[in-house]
Amino acid sequence: MLTKKNIVVIPEPTLRRLPHYLHLLLNLKEQGVKSVSSTFIANELGLDSTQVRKDVQYTNIIGKPKTGFDVNSLINAIQTCLNWNRYENAFLVGAGSLGTAMLGYKQFKDYGLNFVAAFDNDPEKVGQKIHGIEVLSIDRLPVLAQLMKIHLAVLTVPAKAAQECVDIMLKGGIVAIWNFAPTQIKVPKNVIVENAQFSQSLAVLTRKLSVYKQTLL
Amino acid sequence: MLTKKNIVVIPEPTLRRLPHYLHLLLNLKEQGVKSVSSTFIANELGLDSTQVRKDVQYTNIIGKPKTGFDVNSLINAIQTCLNWNRYENAFLVGAGSLGTAMLGYKQFKDYGLNFVAAFDNDPEKVGQKIHGIEVLSIDRLPVLAQLMKIHLAVLTVPAKAAQECVDIMLKGGIVAIWNFAPTQIKVPKNVIVENAQFSQSLAVLTRKLSVYKQTLL
Repeated sequence: MLTKKNIVVIPEPTLRRLPHYLHLLLNLKEQGVKSVSSTFIANELGLDSTQVRKDVQYTNIIGKPKTGFDVNSLINAIQTCLNWNRYENAFLVGAGSLGTAMLGYKQFKDYGLNFVAAFDNDPEKVGQKIHGIEVLSIDRLPVLAQLMKIHLAVLTVPAKAAQECVDIMLKGGIVAIWNFAPTQIKVPKNVIVENAQFSQSLAVLTRKLSVYKQTLL
Repeated sequence: MLTKKNIVVIPEPTLRRLPHYLHLLLNLKEQGVKSVSSTFIANELGLDSTQVRKDVQYTNIIGKPKTGFDVNSLINAIQTCLNWNRYENAFLVGAGSLGTAMLGYKQFKDYGLNFVAAFDNDPEKVGQKIHGIEVLSIDRLPVLAQLMKIHLAVLTVPAKAAQECVDIMLKGGIVAIWNFAPTQIKVPKNVIVENAQFSQSLAVLTRKLSVYKQTLL
């Protein structure tokens, strides 16, 4: 499928697998490995090799019949595909314990995510620096988002404050929200929301564990 | 589908939606709402009402023709379904910035997750208390997991340390791992792994944002 401007639409399950390939490839690169087959990737990650080939096709990389994919080229192709080879400047909203951890999470640089400011409504937090990032009053977000041309914000506030913060973000022209607040947020159709609530992932885990324990009884 | 012991197998997409229903229902309860229809839930969360009815059926709750579902009963049913109405004791492995945030994240109590100890291999961290939880040397994990009958561990270590930590967990009889380490981990077939890497979620977001920006050009 293509968008109006001939940009390939990559299915979400593929997008979620690409970082796994990337982690493996970066590891292989460090070990001096030059080329890799889709079968090797599939075995290492417990996937089907046809699936791996399909996923990799989306990155526009072509493997060679016997040697497989060039590791460096594939790393580059995945990073380009995910837009991780350049920095996307982002705001963090909610400088609590999760927000603080986010600001200090060095790995985000590998994923092209660069926090330039944090926002909170707690006067005690405003003016502080967390991992070198200044905490500003949430009122200032709309103006700064426009001035600094920020399109992406990470939401790490409690459920009750979430929608109010989202409305402030929207005023500033934020078009992509990574939502860690344990609640659903309402946005216009053109705004991208990626829900990353711990509760969703934990639900799968605790249910499976509970079923596993019951089968042992 | 039923397991050998007649336990209903709930599809993963349903499991991931149940926490959203729960957040909404807890909100309604606080506002004094007594009953709710699947259409209302669907509208609030931007879902299809047939989907909501199907999902709710897995919790064994039956709605009434005109009034819909009793809010309290549905909350209870979802919590029971996810095993969130009792505490599951868990270990945290990796007391870095993400691990520290996890230990301080109060919301986990609502999801039945109760950290009883944290582990690290850094001598400077061992012996410290983080949010009231003691950090112990990783070597002690296997014995303590068996003594304390711990089955669930949350992995928040860097990629390079992940597999070594997993092998130590497995020695202690851990059967469910919530993996935040930015790498794939290898476990025997019967061990439950829920990958919750930020990179997967972020991949979807950065790709969509990049496509959105390209369509604007």
